[in-house]
Amino acid sequence: MDTTPPADRLTLAAIRDAHERIRDRIHRTPVLTSTTLDGQSGGKLFFKCENLQKGGAFKARGATNAVFSLTDAEAARGVATHSSGNHAAALSRAAKLRGIPAYIVMPNNAPKAKRAAVERLGGKIVFCEPNIPAREAAAAKVIAETGATLIHPFDNLRVMAGQGTATLELLEQAPDLDIIVAPVGGGGLISGTAVAATSLKPGIRVIGAEPAGADDASRSFKAGKFIPITQANTIADGLRSSTSDRTFAEIRSHVSDIVTVTEESIVAAMRAVWEVLKIVIEPSGAVPYAAIVENKIDVRGKRVGIILTGGNLDLDRLPWQ
Amino acid sequence: MDTTPPADRLTLAAIRDAHERIRDRIHRTPVLTSTTLDGQSGGKLFFKCENLQKGGAFKARGATNAVFSLTDAEAARGVATHSSGNHAAALSRAAKLRGIPAYIVMPNNAPKAKRAAVERLGGKIVFCEPNIPAREAAAAKVIAETGATLIHPFDNLRVMAGQGTATLELLEQAPDLDIIVAPVGGGGLISGTAVAATSLKPGIRVIGAEPAGADDASRSFKAGKFIPITQANTIADGLRSSTSDRTFAEIRSHVSDIVTVTEESIVAAMRAVWEVLKIVIEPSGAVPYAAIVENKIDVRGKRVGIILTGGNLDLDRLPWQ
Repeated sequence: MDTTPPADRLTLAAIRDAHERIRDRIHRTPVLTSTTLDGQSGGKLFFKCENLQKGGAFKARGATNAVFSLTDAEAARGVATHSSGNHAAALSRAAKLRGIPAYIVMPNNAPKAKRAAVERLGGKIVFCEPNIPAREAAAAKVIAETGATLIHPFDNLRVMAGQGTATLELLEQAPDLDIIVAPVGGGGLISGTAVAATSLKPGIRVIGAEPAGADDASRSFKAGKFIPITQANTIADGLRSSTSDRTFAEIRSHVSDIVTVTEESIVAAMRAVWEVLKIVIEPSGAVPYAAIVENKIDVRGKRVGIILTGGNLDLDRLPWQ
Repeated sequence: MDTTPPADRLTLAAIRDAHERIRDRIHRTPVLTSTTLDGQSGGKLFFKCENLQKGGAFKARGATNAVFSLTDAEAARGVATHSSGNHAAALSRAAKLRGIPAYIVMPNNAPKAKRAAVERLGGKIVFCEPNIPAREAAAAKVIAETGATLIHPFDNLRVMAGQGTATLELLEQAPDLDIIVAPVGGGGLISGTAVAATSLKPGIRVIGAEPAGADDASRSFKAGKFIPITQANTIADGLRSSTSDRTFAEIRSHVSDIVTVTEESIVAAMRAVWEVLKIVIEPSGAVPYAAIVENKIDVRGKRVGIILTGGNLDLDRLPWQ
């Protein structure tokens, strides 16, 4: 029997390779625990703090793996992406580390903070009109002109493998977890998380958490087929994407459940993490803990890993004010 | 020659004993680094995150050491203090861990959040009029009635030894530091920090940082004699106390310098730590980094440890809003 996975599927070996490649170029982020939050939930919670990652988000992992996986000839022509959020900054940083150009296609109405983050890291911004066709056309044009490699923010096996490295570390830092909860946006993180966790610990349950206002992955999961998102309406700006065929395939194979949470509980969970754990997380990062606060996941008596994905937000505009 | 230190002086041995006593009852807090903040300062900065300590402040260390140093007979009668801040909560928690009462004398106008923190941890609050003589009288009364042991927030060798344990960990986590910077309030933390650091690494410089609006330690240090504070005017509410004779003796012996910072730079430093390190620190905790931002300490080319002391503050009232 040939047990080789298809070339378009993610493997534990690829995640381990990614970790070897990136470990000296990223932070090994701490895992925090809180007696207070354990008492409220009835479980034992282990918060993997990717908000404390380089650039303030787990995206450093996938972007760094993708950039350092390129051949020298490929790398010399640079990398490109059409994301404007944490992935854009992470790709700019990884490219800078390798000494190659990063072309970041960004709508001309992108927030100043996002533009500044990319510019500070040496990314070359290519502006376009604020719609999907214009972004794709601009990305295609810059790639045609430069020969840069497109590094998609999630629909890319190297990126997915990189995101899975957070779970390799988490399972060393907090062994014997029963459950790991991660948010679902495009599905890169949950894919890497689920492949890493279920390969290393066959009995573990990996659960995705999603805003009810951007519940494409939950609906797809229940329907057993990919349903793209029509309209995203959530404060969790990192989770407004649809999954792709590639990430949805990993979700179907390795994720136990996808639950949804309200906007109110995202804000409440975010504030609780700030107040009790004393760390800054963005709304997207609060979604897994919101699922626990909402009792959408039964954690009583369980050891539960939670991926806190990022901490980038505008401190002048906090959602509880 | 008798090299035994006087009984009222702090020693490395006492700090090591304290660490053995408390290490399973506190968090070993992480040390964070940031390429961004290193680039801005010209040094290599190591942030010891005591805001991520149990109860959100380093005070857990000293209070836990004091409570678990008591004999069973002493402990049975409980502990008392007349602080209403982080020490009160830390003492309540330590007493709860040992299963003994903690009597917390608090002015009847204390903020609700501080009362709630103590009550949640099982501390018994004794209210008094909001002035120093009333607090001392109330503390004396509860001690006379119960036989409880007074655990002063800083003028206590067991407390000072406990606070020094953060530096034992820091020097394991970030060896070869040239400088350690800690804030100065009553002087418990800086005493423990300075004795631990200079005993373990004779060439290291320990520098205190203080708000200009509560600069008693700086003035005392320069005058070579203890000058009590007359009026404290600073947002850094944990640093409004004067040092005591006991803490000032350690400061004189082991601290290289005490620098002061403005209110503006405290707020700017606090915000920079939130934005870049993605952690919540209170104004008092921002004072050492403010001294670096203000160029009061030359850190260029140096490896610098910074004690981030706590993260307890009202998220509805941030100082930049």
